[in-house]
Amino acid sequence: MTALTDLPQEFSFIHRHFAKLAGPAALGLKDDAAVFTPPAGRELVIAADAMVENVHFLPNDPPETIGRKLLRCNLSDLAAMGATPEGWLLTLARPPGLDDSWFAAFCSGLNADQTRFGLSLLGGDTTSTRGPLVLSLTILGSVPCGQAIQRKGAQAGDGLWVTGTIGDGALGLRVLQGQLKDPSGYLASRYRLPQPRVGLPLYGLASAAMDVSDGLLQDAGHLARESGLDVTITAATVPLSEAATACGPHWREICLTGGDDYEILFAVPPSHEADLQQAGALETPHGRVAVTRIGQFHEGNGEVRALGHDGCPLFFAKGGWSHL
Amino acid sequence: MTALTDLPQEFSFIHRHFAKLAGPAALGLKDDAAVFTPPAGRELVIAADAMVENVHFLPNDPPETIGRKLLRCNLSDLAAMGATPEGWLLTLARPPGLDDSWFAAFCSGLNADQTRFGLSLLGGDTTSTRGPLVLSLTILGSVPCGQAIQRKGAQAGDGLWVTGTIGDGALGLRVLQGQLKDPSGYLASRYRLPQPRVGLPLYGLASAAMDVSDGLLQDAGHLARESGLDVTITAATVPLSEAATACGPHWREICLTGGDDYEILFAVPPSHEADLQQAGALETPHGRVAVTRIGQFHEGNGEVRALGHDGCPLFFAKGGWSHL
Repeated sequence: MTALTDLPQEFSFIHRHFAKLAGPAALGLKDDAAVFTPPAGRELVIAADAMVENVHFLPNDPPETIGRKLLRCNLSDLAAMGATPEGWLLTLARPPGLDDSWFAAFCSGLNADQTRFGLSLLGGDTTSTRGPLVLSLTILGSVPCGQAIQRKGAQAGDGLWVTGTIGDGALGLRVLQGQLKDPSGYLASRYRLPQPRVGLPLYGLASAAMDVSDGLLQDAGHLARESGLDVTITAATVPLSEAATACGPHWREICLTGGDDYEILFAVPPSHEADLQQAGALETPHGRVAVTRIGQFHEGNGEVRALGHDGCPLFFAKGGWSHL
Repeated sequence: MTALTDLPQEFSFIHRHFAKLAGPAALGLKDDAAVFTPPAGRELVIAADAMVENVHFLPNDPPETIGRKLLRCNLSDLAAMGATPEGWLLTLARPPGLDDSWFAAFCSGLNADQTRFGLSLLGGDTTSTRGPLVLSLTILGSVPCGQAIQRKGAQAGDGLWVTGTIGDGALGLRVLQGQLKDPSGYLASRYRLPQPRVGLPLYGLASAAMDVSDGLLQDAGHLARESGLDVTITAATVPLSEAATACGPHWREICLTGGDDYEILFAVPPSHEADLQQAGALETPHGRVAVTRIGQFHEGNGEVRALGHDGCPLFFAKGGWSHL
C-alpha cells in the first residue's frame, strides 16, 4: 500500500533483514502472498498477537529478545491447542531511530527461535510510524483433524494441572522496573524469554487447555467458564521457582495474578491423574516439562476460588478475579 | 499477553464489536487460536498488511472505510494470486480517544465487506497504544494445488494487461489533501474504497500477475524483474477513468506512478491475446471487469520503459522507476 509519507528502500530493508528467515512457501518475500501447502490430514491452528513499545516491552529491552518474546507468546498459543508450529507472518510499524544494527539483532533472535521451534517466515509488511514500535505476529500451526484441544471440555471432577512454574514473568517485570531484586537474573530472563511448551502431548490426556498469559487465577476462570464449571485452586500447590520463592510470601499474590507465564493450564480426567502424578512430567521435543496438580473442577458457572493453608478462600486486591 | 498498562475490559470490547464477525473456525474468539480446516485439494495463500494512522489513512477518514480499505488491500493480494478468500485475522493497537461509536462503524464496514467477499474473522488481538492507531490484517485464501499465479512466469512476447482504471486512488488522495478538485467525489471514493478484483479467472490465462499498489510503473518493474525481462508500456493506452481524464494531462504522471490502485497487472501469452482483446473484459463473481492491453514484455533484466505518443521514452520526476 502506498504510504502518505514514504518509507524509503522498504524492499532493500526487507531483503537485508528478513529474507534469510523466509521458507520456500514465502516465495522469497517477493510475491503478493505466500503459498502454503497444509500437511495432509491436518487442520490449521492460527493465532495473532500484537506487542506495543512501552505497553508490552520496555524501550531498553534487548532487541534480540523483543521479537522472540512475541514469537514465543504465539508459540504458546499453539502449544495450548496441542498444535505443531508451521509458519509465521510479521508486520511492523517502525519509528524513526531504530537503526540497522537494532534490526539485525532483532532478526537474529527470531532466526534462532524459528530454527529451534521448527517454523519459517511466510510473509509480512513493514511501514513507518511516528509513534511507538508496534509488532503484529500471526502464527500457523497444524494438528491432526479433530485433535485440537480447546478451553471448553473440562468435566466436574477433572484435576487442574499446570506446566513449569508460575509467577516468574510477573516478578521479572518488577525486577526490571526496579521494584524487586533478583541477583540471579532468572526472573528477568523468564519475563523477556518465556519458554513455550511446544509439543506438549495433550491429546488423549487433557480435556481442556489454555496458556497462562493474563494471570493464573484469571485464566483458570476462562477455562472454568468455557467449560461451564467452577474451579478451586489450592494456592500452596502452585509451583514456584526457587527465585520466586526467595522473593518472599508477600509476592505470592503477584505470582498468582500477574501473568506473562506462558505455561499451559490443563484439565485432566481422574482416570489419567494417577499416572500423571507418578510421572510428574511430560516429554516434549524440547525436553521434559514438569507438571503439577493445583486444583479441581466442580459443577458451577465459571467461578475461581483460591484456598489458603487453612482451606479458607483467599481474597486478592486485583479486582474481580473470583467473579470473572 | 499482559500489558504494562492495563487495557480494561478487553474481553467485553472484543465481544461487543468483533464477535459478530467471527465464523465457526474462530471458536467464538474465546480460545487461544482458531482451528481452520483447509478445503480439500487446495493450497493456502496468505498475506499480511499493516496500516498506520497519518501514514496510510487520514485521521478524519470515515471509520467505516478504514478497516474495509485494509481488508480490500489484502483481498487484492489474494486476487493477484488467483485465490478465493477464506478468512482473516486482525490486530489493532488502539489510542485513547477512539470511542465505542467509532469501533461500531469500523466493524460495520468490515462486516459488510466480509459478507460481500465471502470470508469471516478467524481471530486477532487488541492492545492499547499512546501512539497512532495501527491495524494489521492477515488474510487467508485458497487455490487449487499448483494454480497460484506468481510474479515470475512472464515470457518475452507476452502482453502486459491491467484491470479497471489506473490513477484514481492516487488522485483521490490529492483531492482529500485539497490539491485537486473532483466535484463527482469519484476519485476520493476510489482512494478510500478500492475495488479488489476478487475471483479474476487468471489461471490458464495469465503467465504472471500482481496487484498495483505502489504505482503502475514501479509494479510493472517488479513483474518484469521477477520474470527476468524488460517491459515497455505505451502510456496512451493506460486506461483512465472519466474523472481522472478530466483532471487534465499534467496529472497523468501521478496516475502512472502514484499507487493505491489495487487493480491487477498481468502477463498474457500471445496465444490468448486475440480472444481477450475481443472480449475486453473478464467475468468475476462480483461482476465484469474491463481489461486493457498496455504493453509488452521483452528480453532484458527488469527495466520498465513508458513510451509517449511519439514512441519516445517518457521520463518522470519520481526517481528511479526505470532502474528498479
